[in-house]
Amino acid sequence: MRNIMMTLAYDGTFYHGFQKQKGTALKTVQQELETALGILSAEEVTVYGSGRTDAGVHAEGQVINFHTTSRIPVERFPLAVNSLLPRDIVVSEARDVTEDFHARYSAKRKTYRYTIYNAPYLSPFWRHYAYHVPVSLDAGRMETAAASFLGAHDFRGFCAKDTAVTDFTRTIYSCSVEKHGPLLIISVEGDGFLYNMVRIMAGTLLEIGQNKREIDNIAFLLKKGDRKQAGMTLPPQGLCLYSVGYPDL
Amino acid sequence: MRNIMMTLAYDGTFYHGFQKQKGTALKTVQQELETALGILSAEEVTVYGSGRTDAGVHAEGQVINFHTTSRIPVERFPLAVNSLLPRDIVVSEARDVTEDFHARYSAKRKTYRYTIYNAPYLSPFWRHYAYHVPVSLDAGRMETAAASFLGAHDFRGFCAKDTAVTDFTRTIYSCSVEKHGPLLIISVEGDGFLYNMVRIMAGTLLEIGQNKREIDNIAFLLKKGDRKQAGMTLPPQGLCLYSVGYPDL
Repeated sequence: MRNIMMTLAYDGTFYHGFQKQKGTALKTVQQELETALGILSAEEVTVYGSGRTDAGVHAEGQVINFHTTSRIPVERFPLAVNSLLPRDIVVSEARDVTEDFHARYSAKRKTYRYTIYNAPYLSPFWRHYAYHVPVSLDAGRMETAAASFLGAHDFRGFCAKDTAVTDFTRTIYSCSVEKHGPLLIISVEGDGFLYNMVRIMAGTLLEIGQNKREIDNIAFLLKKGDRKQAGMTLPPQGLCLYSVGYPDL
Repeated sequence: MRNIMMTLAYDGTFYHGFQKQKGTALKTVQQELETALGILSAEEVTVYGSGRTDAGVHAEGQVINFHTTSRIPVERFPLAVNSLLPRDIVVSEARDVTEDFHARYSAKRKTYRYTIYNAPYLSPFWRHYAYHVPVSLDAGRMETAAASFLGAHDFRGFCAKDTAVTDFTRTIYSCSVEKHGPLLIISVEGDGFLYNMVRIMAGTLLEIGQNKREIDNIAFLLKKGDRKQAGMTLPPQGLCLYSVGYPDL
């Protein structure tokens, strides 16, 4: 069996997240991919994603893999599968990988971006891709505070309560806040992320930008480990899975 | 009666253009504005736009005006009307103007942008906002050729045939082609535009970028005045009414 890895972008607005919802008719990215790849290869295909994304969350560089007996040359896969996918899911790359590659278990790094639209009125072009904050924000405070996330920490205070995870330690390699006109882009790269972690980190940084929290509050929250004391979970549409990193690729 | 001017942005994807379609239930931007302003002012409102935009065409800076007896302070209008409008139409500014101001007849300049997404695969985030060209384009040739449009010309060769216009002379103040990653943005500023004029200009520049036409072909087409010899009319989703200029404002 071949093992094929694909990189894809999707606009998550009209999907109930990445992951297939068994026993429902809800539209998911995984289901669309399995349907398209099933038609293309004339066999049943199971898609493994690097991780799920929630309803309304986007991806610039989600990575998946699947096994197939198809003999279609790998360089033809993107165009062929795109012709069978809806236009809000687009495969940009496909490659043959070794048998042991798994999009989720082989992943070493992930980068997410959270976009805030900071202006009195939300541009109609950003309504599905950013969280609107009409009050003024101090991006400098947010950028300074973001550095507190760097390194290995116990992130149980930045994790949705309904999680089955037992190890809450994650390492953050970079966390920055950039301003481009009305857009504030929070970029976070780490070895992995807990459920809702980026959206809670962004919500906490937002409150620091609004002067509702001290700049050094994050260090305290990381030590405390109490979800109730961290910031709000920002809504899904501002979140985008930007890229996933693998060794030897 | 007050005369109020408003600047607005809209995502034209789900509208049958700006202009109200009498005797139909088709969704138009003008109709949405008249409905929202009618509720707000508790009187019937007629909206005058700087010009119509076709189905699927967007606006960053459309300008309209309307007459009203409402006493709502002008600075409250944007927030109030936005709360009544769908999220894909957003008013960013309102001001009281003199009685003789008319969004269409007072307009002195308009700027349009046409966006081409030039990469093998179309990003899902640009599917409604750009025209996808997968083959490689020579942006330098397009930029050089664009200068031929500058000045006053008879644009009958760059106008859809079904027009009632008799004076085809328009003056172009600037016409540029800029590359930002996969995006090619054609910006055109002029004293006015004929029906489909920007989309035909963009279609002709595109063929120059594909080496299907000579760089000096535009001067010939302007002299010739034959629509059939100019380039194709590019599709609406790449077009955006960027701004409208008025004297003394």
